[in-house]
Amino acid sequence: MELTAIRTPYLLLDRPRMLRNIHRLQARMDALGVVLRPHVKTAKSAPIAELMCKHPLGPITVSTIKEAEYFAEYGYRDILYAVGISPDKLEPLAALMHKGVKITVLLDSAAQAEAVLAANQKWNTGIRAAIELDCDGHRAGLVPGDPDILVIARQLHEGNALAGVLLHAGGSYHCETDAEKAAAAEAERQAAVSTAESIRAEGMQVSMVSVGSTPTAHYAENLEGVTEVRAGVYVFQDLVMAGIHVCALEDIAIGVVATVIGHRPDKGWILCDAGWMALSRDRGTAKQAVDQGYGVVTTLDGEVYPDLIVANTSQEHGVMMLREGSEAVLPDLPIGTKICVLPNHACATASQFEEYVVSDDRHTQATRWSRINGW
Amino acid sequence: MELTAIRTPYLLLDRPRMLRNIHRLQARMDALGVVLRPHVKTAKSAPIAELMCKHPLGPITVSTIKEAEYFAEYGYRDILYAVGISPDKLEPLAALMHKGVKITVLLDSAAQAEAVLAANQKWNTGIRAAIELDCDGHRAGLVPGDPDILVIARQLHEGNALAGVLLHAGGSYHCETDAEKAAAAEAERQAAVSTAESIRAEGMQVSMVSVGSTPTAHYAENLEGVTEVRAGVYVFQDLVMAGIHVCALEDIAIGVVATVIGHRPDKGWILCDAGWMALSRDRGTAKQAVDQGYGVVTTLDGEVYPDLIVANTSQEHGVMMLREGSEAVLPDLPIGTKICVLPNHACATASQFEEYVVSDDRHTQATRWSRINGW
Repeated sequence: MELTAIRTPYLLLDRPRMLRNIHRLQARMDALGVVLRPHVKTAKSAPIAELMCKHPLGPITVSTIKEAEYFAEYGYRDILYAVGISPDKLEPLAALMHKGVKITVLLDSAAQAEAVLAANQKWNTGIRAAIELDCDGHRAGLVPGDPDILVIARQLHEGNALAGVLLHAGGSYHCETDAEKAAAAEAERQAAVSTAESIRAEGMQVSMVSVGSTPTAHYAENLEGVTEVRAGVYVFQDLVMAGIHVCALEDIAIGVVATVIGHRPDKGWILCDAGWMALSRDRGTAKQAVDQGYGVVTTLDGEVYPDLIVANTSQEHGVMMLREGSEAVLPDLPIGTKICVLPNHACATASQFEEYVVSDDRHTQATRWSRINGW
Repeated sequence: MELTAIRTPYLLLDRPRMLRNIHRLQARMDALGVVLRPHVKTAKSAPIAELMCKHPLGPITVSTIKEAEYFAEYGYRDILYAVGISPDKLEPLAALMHKGVKITVLLDSAAQAEAVLAANQKWNTGIRAAIELDCDGHRAGLVPGDPDILVIARQLHEGNALAGVLLHAGGSYHCETDAEKAAAAEAERQAAVSTAESIRAEGMQVSMVSVGSTPTAHYAENLEGVTEVRAGVYVFQDLVMAGIHVCALEDIAIGVVATVIGHRPDKGWILCDAGWMALSRDRGTAKQAVDQGYGVVTTLDGEVYPDLIVANTSQEHGVMMLREGSEAVLPDLPIGTKICVLPNHACATASQFEEYVVSDDRHTQATRWSRINGW
């Protein structure tokens, strides 16, 4: 089927670009000698996870119980649920353990550790937990050196539930230079490895030393002591990543294909049928050096229209216009023209859709891949 | 089932609040003697549309072809697709016409009118079109008095496809006082009615004079000459509407129920498992007098925690904290506590979910209603 014949808006996946992104990060991990545990929350799709895993059904990271259940159905047997555990999530995870899935959860308090141990006892299972650390103050986790870390480690260790330590350098999303990203990766590594060592020094076994974010994964120079790296958005890349030079615009593998539905020449606007419902409300580039509005506009072939962005949206309307101060000429895009909008944030934009229209040549549809949403 | 036993995050629908919202607007429309054509894009759910329609299967407004197809399956026979039409959408709409559905589309250019007439000829059907007008420069539409209006009206009239005129005073979302909202409603009415009259003066029949937005629908004082009013968000209301005093916080009928998953006492943070994936990235209150972050936090019963908002989010994490400058005390919410987050924008938050958990008492689930997403 021709891409121009598909009802818009839809989510186009440029398979060659995605494969290039996957190979790029895997090659880097191989060179550094560390296991990649892909985060499947970006794509939420079995055929894509299959391509992200170096070994079939390799270890994966999930962000919801529904993802854990979905990927377990597809045969994945080593799943890390990387959001602080709450007691209500333990019953469905115990059910997955009973199906043969090794589940690791995340926590940063004694109350959560107690809940995990109680669940293991109640459902006669062996969910293990990693202690979440924080190296840049952006979200959850204990700061390395916090005495609670050893208390919780001991509690888990005595219940045979200590997996190790984990952190996510979310602050790296604001690192513009290569040196800053490499420094963030090294800070992430040091926090994880030094904490793992301090736990080992107390005679406890730490098998998981898990770090990762797309920027630090691409710029880490040394991963000594780290047992695995997690990353998700690298599979598609996006404008936020391009804005901090982790990728180029030509690496972004997904885009929302839309149709021109109107013009306001008096205002310099071209309207399309991709509003925030299709593009998402994510404005992740708003605080970057170049604000990309709701996305950069390209041809269906992927060629960028100079300075043309989706500047404003309502539910099913996108308002395209030239970036402020641009000297480019507004392109002539008659009613019915198909365009493609690159996403600010791949996870957010992809989540607005139920499937990927996969293409190898940006002219015809090769296949469609479904994805899940919800919890 | 107890609401506390349901896996979070989920979308809670407080049915009594919703019914109150529906009755409030319907009573107003009845008093003004005008038909309400509910916009079903907010709820996208057949059982909710049923409650929004005064007469069974009454006229509705949709924002996507998928909504048109879904509601046609449920028996709706008078559907207005209120997004500027593009040629690719006409084939599926013609298919609905052949099933007995009366379809009206929207346009503001001769090229679109030509496409509608060509489609009617090609598929031997009678899709009609309303001409979109603009009274506040916020999106699509022709400005009243633009000579193109009569040209397009003539073109449609000669093809037996002229329905009438339509506008949406989107600018009313920024009207804080009652007087401003009433003035926006009157401007909307005048633009529609005067344009309809100018078309009638040329000997053409105008049967549809359609106006509407949730703020103007609630504050219109006179709807003479208007044949129908459209509104959607009124069914649930939200923080944006509360911020411009269209409703109170106690009227907001949906909320995202979440579980406390962590604490950062050093930062004054309480973490929950509703991130932007559940709450949406909508920051509609950011430019209002009171910025509500990603949402106002209440108990499961609906009681507001003073000054507690979701100040920050990542994909599956919400960071709750007291509003800046607040003198309230951070509530003690242990791991596992259930809270409810009121949405900035009901359409955006609801679209992150596949179903509504419906409750009459905010303690037990009465039923679940599915909703659609996608195109």
